Formats: sequence, C-alpha cells, structure tokens
Amino acid sequence: MKVGFYQFRPLFGKPKQNCHKILNALDNVDADLIVLPELALSGYYFKDKNESLKYAEDPENSHRLDALIGLAKNRNMHLVIGFAEKREEQCYNSAALIGPNGIEHIYRKAHLFNEEKFCFDQGNTPFIVNEVNGVKVGIMICFDWVFPEASRTLSMQGAEIICHPSNLVLTFCQQTMLARCIENRVFAITANRYGEDKRPQGSLKFTGKSQVVAPGGKLLHRAASQRDALFITDINPNEAHDKFITKHNDLFGDRRPEFY
Amino acid sequence: MKVGFYQFRPLFGKPKQNCHKILNALDNVDADLIVLPELALSGYYFKDKNESLKYAEDPENSHRLDALIGLAKNRNMHLVIGFAEKREEQCYNSAALIGPNGIEHIYRKAHLFNEEKFCFDQGNTPFIVNEVNGVKVGIMICFDWVFPEASRTLSMQGAEIICHPSNLVLTFCQQTMLARCIENRVFAITANRYGEDKRPQGSLKFTGKSQVVAPGGKLLHRAASQRDALFITDINPNEAHDKFITKHNDLFGDRRPEFY
Repeated sequence: MKVGFYQFRPLFGKPKQNCHKILNALDNVDADLIVLPELALSGYYFKDKNESLKYAEDPENSHRLDALIGLAKNRNMHLVIGFAEKREEQCYNSAALIGPNGIEHIYRKAHLFNEEKFCFDQGNTPFIVNEVNGVKVGIMICFDWVFPEASRTLSMQGAEIICHPSNLVLTFCQQTMLARCIENRVFAITANRYGEDKRPQGSLKFTGKSQVVAPGGKLLHRAASQRDALFITDINPNEAHDKFITKHNDLFGDRRPEFY
Repeated sequence: MKVGFYQFRPLFGKPKQNCHKILNALDNVDADLIVLPELALSGYYFKDKNESLKYAEDPENSHRLDALIGLAKNRNMHLVIGFAEKREEQCYNSAALIGPNGIEHIYRKAHLFNEEKFCFDQGNTPFIVNEVNGVKVGIMICFDWVFPEASRTLSMQGAEIICHPSNLVLTFCQQTMLARCIENRVFAITANRYGEDKRPQGSLKFTGKSQVVAPGGKLLHRAASQRDALFITDINPNEAHDKFITKHNDLFGDRRPEFY
C-alpha cells in the first residue's frame, strides 16, 4: 500500500489558494492514501469562533472539499485532510477521510489545544476506524498525540494506520509518536505544516518534520522542518497485525485492564 | 526531596553478595528515596519457577530485606527495590517500598516479560500510590513501561514520582519514559541494571542508562550503559502537581474518557 503525506504551509484565511496548492501538488501522485495537515484549507490561528466559522467549510456545500473528492477520484486514492468544519452555528476542528466517492468519515478533534478552545466546539465523534482498500485506518488530530488513550483506542479497534493531521507548535510530538507506535505496533503518519501564522493576537510557528513511523517505532521518514515535502512509501499494513514485542508478549493480550 | 538510583550489576544467584554490594554502596548516602533495579538481590535470568523460588525472598523471613530495612533506618531514607518474592508456592517479580520502620508496600509486576512468564506468577496487586515524607510515590517494574496504562493509572492516583526498578534488555524504554513524563507530567526514576546473565538456557545483556526524568519529559540525568552509578538529585515533587502543558490545557482535566 502506497501511503504518505504532503507537508506545506497553508496561508491564513486563503482556502481557495490553499486548496489550489494541494490540488497542484497531488495532481500526478501515485498513492493509495495521502495525509495532509490539520486545518489545511483555512490556516490555523483564528482569533475567535466567529473567525473560524468565517473560514470553515460546510461539508454539504464546499467547493474545496468537492475539489478534493475530484482529486481522489482522478487519482483513485484516499486523502485525510484537516479542515474547519461548519455545521450551522457549530465549528469543529475536523479531519475528513475522502475517497473517490466522497467523504467517508469525519472525525472532530477530541482534545482541543490551547486557544483552539475559544475557536472550536469540542469534538463529539468517537475514535473509530474506517477501511481504505481493506486496510483499517484511524484518524486523530495533532494534540490528540499527548493522550495515549487516543492512539490506544484506535489501535485496539484494529487500526493498522493512524492518520495524524497536525499543526504542531510544541516539539515533543514527533518523538512521542515513536512511543505510540512501539506501544501499539501500528503505522502512524503525522502530516504537519510549517511556516508561521502572524495574526493581530500573536504569532505561531509550526515545526514541520512530518513523518511516517512503522510498528515498533521505526522511523521510515521524517521531513525537513521548513519546506514543502511530498513523501510516499510502500508499506505492508499487515505488519501492524503482529502485536508480539517478544516471543511471549502480545502487547494487547498482555494488558491487565482489571488494574487500569 | 533528594531522590536517585543505584545502578549496578547483580550477580546471578548470589543474593548475599548482591545485598552486601547494595549496603556498601548506600552506607553513607544522604537521600530520601533511592530506587534499585528489578530482581536486585537474585539476578534475573531464571530457567524456571523452581529456580526463581530457590533464590526468592519471603518478606516475612528474609535476612536480606531485614538488612535493607536496617539501612533505611540508619540513613533515615526509603528504598524501592525489585526482588523475587516467595509466598508459599507462589513466586512474584515484586518491588518493595522499604522505610525505616519496615516494608511499607509490595507491588507485584503486572506485565511479565517474555520468559518471566515461566518463572513468576502474574502480579495480583493494583497500581497504587504510597506516601514517602508526604510525597506520593508509585511503583511499576521494567516492562510495565510499554503499557501506557501503568504510568497513567499511577499518575491519575496522584503519583508525583514513579519508581521504576528495571532489568532492561530492549532499547526503547529510556526514550519512551520521556513520553510517560510528558503525557503524565510526573517524575520517573528508572533504575536499571547492567552486565550479563549467562545461563545454560542462554544469555541476556542489560542496558544500564538508568535515568531520572522530570515532568514534561526533561531528562535530569542518564547514567552510562555499563558501570556502577549512584545518582542523587534534589527535586521539587510539587512540580508534578501542575498538569498544564499550555495555559489552557490541563492534561488530566482535558481527557475525554467517554471516547476511550
């Protein structure tokens, strides 16, 4: 299965340009699954919920998401992309699994980071897995990384690949995702953005270094910090079925939930 | 609070000599809490349960544990030490919290590693915290590190310091313990052994590099791989009370257990 990420620098409040950038970058790609950053259409650093609503997409009526569905159809692939999701007066920091036939799943970020709490409603969707060409794919967004329960819940539902759209400002995540892949023996694709959102209320820099990690915590690739990066690699998702870290230790079977 | 570890190389099947080594090393120590490796009295690589029982200590009747209680009393300190615990026909891979007045708690390893499954009974004690001079201390042993639920459970019960006696043969633990201290914002003292247990059934090498990690994943010290190391540092356990990773993110308050 050919999987990867596209790391770039979304421009704040320019969804049309950001969408165009993605369409161009992935126009000739040969892949089964590409993960894009969090809030890849709108940019990140909203000042309040009115502003996030202003730049949000209504999945029922979005030229941008429709264009991405068109891309998925043309390339016969799946995308996972973070976007601001408008549902009437609600606004979620969401990620969509997009296939050739449309949006197959929307996950709404369960753990909002810092000032996101003033710009988004708290996610209300469970951590579930979806199938992409028969491979079980789970989604979590950015700050979900710090809660081991997020990747654990997805993995225990059978996720073979965790898709992880991100806009990281802290520096701990990339390393900690290795631990997530050690403890759960899954693949994880962290698609981060880079660059800076300079806004009246402040400025945020993003850390790039998008990565693909294999079960056991093996880093297959980590991108540079501050440049566009399209990376695709061929993985065998079946590797995520083997939960044995030693001959006698099945990491899931050995759990002792009666003590947790 | 002065805390630390003593890393050494226990000799297989020589509990008297190993105990003597510990007593000598800590004879003049000025500390409140010292963590020692897993199975620090017996050595590690038993061939079966009969052999582990042979070198195990019955806490009700153990010259070695009594000597360590004497040490704790003389130095007015606490020790956490891993040992093979014999209870009639049962044998556990345990760790004792020892204070000036005796054994204050025994934790029995919940997640047995590899061939330990043939040498020990599965732990049957919950993850709980004990107070040492008013500071909340939790215990987990070696391979418990790979299950995020172990350190999570201790931390959510208020553990400020996780004491982690270890005999590590894998190489992932030390780095992953940084993640445990990021996600739980606790201190963790991993006391590992070094050297090799050469036995008829095979040989195991241990990785040393004992360490003390502060909340947020800050590595305060990591020992060398293959030498004795006594390390003591002054920490402020109150730092573990602050679960805020950003101004608006309390890592425990922000959990969404309804989705885990």
